[in-house]
Amino acid sequence: MTAVLTPMHDDLQPNVELLVRHGSGLLAAGCSGLVLLGTTGEANSFTVRERKTLLEEVLAAGLKSDKLIVGTGCCPLGDTIELTKHALSQGVERVLVLPPFYYKDVTDDGLFEAFATVIEEVADGRLRVLLYLIPQLTGIEIGAPLVARLVQAFPVTIGGLKDSSGDWEATQALCRALGDTIDVMVGTETLLLQAMSAGASGCITAMGNVAAREIVELYEMREMPAATARSGAINELRATLQTLPLIPALKAYLAQTTGDASWRNVRPPLMSLTPEP
Amino acid sequence: MTAVLTPMHDDLQPNVELLVRHGSGLLAAGCSGLVLLGTTGEANSFTVRERKTLLEEVLAAGLKSDKLIVGTGCCPLGDTIELTKHALSQGVERVLVLPPFYYKDVTDDGLFEAFATVIEEVADGRLRVLLYLIPQLTGIEIGAPLVARLVQAFPVTIGGLKDSSGDWEATQALCRALGDTIDVMVGTETLLLQAMSAGASGCITAMGNVAAREIVELYEMREMPAATARSGAINELRATLQTLPLIPALKAYLAQTTGDASWRNVRPPLMSLTPEP
Repeated sequence: MTAVLTPMHDDLQPNVELLVRHGSGLLAAGCSGLVLLGTTGEANSFTVRERKTLLEEVLAAGLKSDKLIVGTGCCPLGDTIELTKHALSQGVERVLVLPPFYYKDVTDDGLFEAFATVIEEVADGRLRVLLYLIPQLTGIEIGAPLVARLVQAFPVTIGGLKDSSGDWEATQALCRALGDTIDVMVGTETLLLQAMSAGASGCITAMGNVAAREIVELYEMREMPAATARSGAINELRATLQTLPLIPALKAYLAQTTGDASWRNVRPPLMSLTPEP
Repeated sequence: MTAVLTPMHDDLQPNVELLVRHGSGLLAAGCSGLVLLGTTGEANSFTVRERKTLLEEVLAAGLKSDKLIVGTGCCPLGDTIELTKHALSQGVERVLVLPPFYYKDVTDDGLFEAFATVIEEVADGRLRVLLYLIPQLTGIEIGAPLVARLVQAFPVTIGGLKDSSGDWEATQALCRALGDTIDVMVGTETLLLQAMSAGASGCITAMGNVAAREIVELYEMREMPAATARSGAINELRATLQTLPLIPALKAYLAQTTGDASWRNVRPPLMSLTPEP
């Protein structure tokens, strides 16, 4: 699956037409789903109202709700609840939920309570939550014991997790402890094959925006040796992009390859990679 | 000034009556102002709607707008703008503004653009912004060069900063570079006297919730030697509280000293320090 970029007009309002075209292309390239309004989609730079409108507009423009996972996790649990209820009201049953991420050094009890509050307040049997583990941005560690406790309390609702830690030891521990029970999705294709060997279900990756077909092929090959050549091509592109801030770099790459300069637009505090004059 | 706790009923809705009573007591104890909805006030656990309502209600209940500084900084700049405009509409001209804090490793250019966007969109000559530096929670470093650049661009609007880093070297650098130009407020009374010697204007502290009079006396003594005894008493109380998570500990202390058990309530991911059964 691809963590989809959010293209914007020059006034930094979402370019829904371009987003739908891009998303449709990713599905046509073989992605099994699209994550809207995750980290790559600059979700936390959009207000609740903007996020709801964006989802309504992409659905109205033709993206299918069963192909979407929508990011709904905010610092105020009231916002997370509102966005999650809204996604369900639009037929999107899968949501990717950040822990409330302002306070640090919070306890597993406090994080359990936060996720439990959201699930209990939303109170919808259709809901499938993917827990979003991205400690390098949230400063919040969510380990296998907390996930297992949530799975035990909400066995149907906790559908999986996205582990974007990039920490193979942590990913492996999660795959081994939980891979048989829930969908463990890694946050990068670089760990896809080894994570799948350990029990992961797949990956949700930002690189899918620029190399969807190659990553789908990697997924389908499954076997490490056969995948090496394909993986090498993706690695080359990643190496070029990763010397730069990733979201602006991916957008600049799409601006260049599609000829649509508006792809460069990002919301502050991110900054576009404007070509030097 | 005190960074005021937000008391809550058992359903975790704000207890406005208790907040106003507590705030009035802090002013009577000599605080020159109250910061509502900062870190200590669990601002980021409240939605935009809840934050607006809280401010309207405390003003309706009698707190004076010119005694208040309201926290308005959120991840989505649209929310920061909405809350800042709202504060001004209620006669509160001073706001404490976090940088957008989801993305890390952002540039000074990106942070400048974020604050500039807020100031330009609010477009109100009455506005006085205090920049909120609390890198241990935001993961965002705001150094003297960025502050100086903002002061140069918005000399009237940037009224000061709150430095909650707790890092004396950083605080001293800010005081020396900017103490003559803007109000540098430190985030703890432990650095108050040395910071004032270096050019700071005062402090905004969570400990004010439980020791306002003592901290006001410390401020008024100014001189380090004379202040030692008073500082010792505060240090003793702080030493007792700081072995625990600070916000729940301050609330538990007030529950104990006032007899009002509802003071213990906090919103997840924070957890109350409930006495063992």
